[in-house]
Amino acid sequence: MSGAILILSGPSGAGKSTIIENASEQIGDFYFSISTTTRKPRVGEVDGVDYYFTDKESFERDIKAGEFLEYAKVHDNYYGTSLKPVREALEEGKLVIFDIDVQGHRLAREKLGDIITSAFITPPTLSELEKRLKSRCTDSPDIVAKRLINAKKEIEEINSYDFVIINDDLQKATEEFVTIARAARLKMSESDRSKFVDEWKAK
Amino acid sequence: MSGAILILSGPSGAGKSTIIENASEQIGDFYFSISTTTRKPRVGEVDGVDYYFTDKESFERDIKAGEFLEYAKVHDNYYGTSLKPVREALEEGKLVIFDIDVQGHRLAREKLGDIITSAFITPPTLSELEKRLKSRCTDSPDIVAKRLINAKKEIEEINSYDFVIINDDLQKATEEFVTIARAARLKMSESDRSKFVDEWKAK
Repeated sequence: MSGAILILSGPSGAGKSTIIENASEQIGDFYFSISTTTRKPRVGEVDGVDYYFTDKESFERDIKAGEFLEYAKVHDNYYGTSLKPVREALEEGKLVIFDIDVQGHRLAREKLGDIITSAFITPPTLSELEKRLKSRCTDSPDIVAKRLINAKKEIEEINSYDFVIINDDLQKATEEFVTIARAARLKMSESDRSKFVDEWKAK
Repeated sequence: MSGAILILSGPSGAGKSTIIENASEQIGDFYFSISTTTRKPRVGEVDGVDYYFTDKESFERDIKAGEFLEYAKVHDNYYGTSLKPVREALEEGKLVIFDIDVQGHRLAREKLGDIITSAFITPPTLSELEKRLKSRCTDSPDIVAKRLINAKKEIEEINSYDFVIINDDLQKATEEFVTIARAARLKMSESDRSKFVDEWKAK
């Protein structure tokens, strides 16, 4: 039996990383998809942990070869999800978890829709998001403003997600995430279903 | 917050009733949808427990009034799912569980697709299904033969279901059902999502 995919989207500051971390022991073996980028590593960032770092030439070659599940160009840098490690994890029967944006979700659905479950994670209100972003002190006021504008755009797309997790209470949000992740693991691909039906009738 | 729907389909003999019974304590408050029929009650059948029994005239009036989520005519008798008790249970925020066939699933999707999760439950093989049906001794050989033909037709439709539960090991099948039912409860309707987004931006 092959694996399945769980896509998480939601504004920066929604608490996605904390939820995944809190839930990790309860959802069993999973592979957290790491993005590939052409931007330079920042201090402390490790290749293969934070990102796969590569150069523009290799990235564009891989785009042409269809090696990306999804990719986007932001401020002259490419960011994308390589299919190879995802395929390997799926073949091992693992649940693959993605933290990607609304556009990435749409592109991934087109390629691997039959094994995808998706959840949009959001703070309860826009003002709560603003409060959380400001209290993190990691972003300049300019960046916070950009993130809020982006969040208002992204939340309009929640109908394209299977689930919405409102992160008002972290424990409740984590429990909902665990429930969704466990169900996501049970998705069977269309090719596995066809194989099953053929064998079912023959036996 | 309103409720959600879990639709179960699968051949007679797949173990649906046993699985629901075994799971009932673990999945919290739910309403098991009872069908309405125009056929006469058999000995021991109770109105409002096994079926809602009604006459042909009322049934056809309700069809015209759009009061059925789905219905079908089988051997001159109508069978259907009345919307009223379903709507009431949904308004109370309950999970509504249906045991309906492939055609009923399709019709229900058209009307209430945004809050539906569905699972097809099946024995591991066709011969195992035959064995189970014969060992029940409740059906004549004719009926068993009809059920097998029907099962072969229905299993071709498993791609239209969110999940497939292979009932090879009852405990494992029940665990999978519990996982799916818990996730099903988290589905948010499109109208609830719109309301949430409006409030999210305003607060």
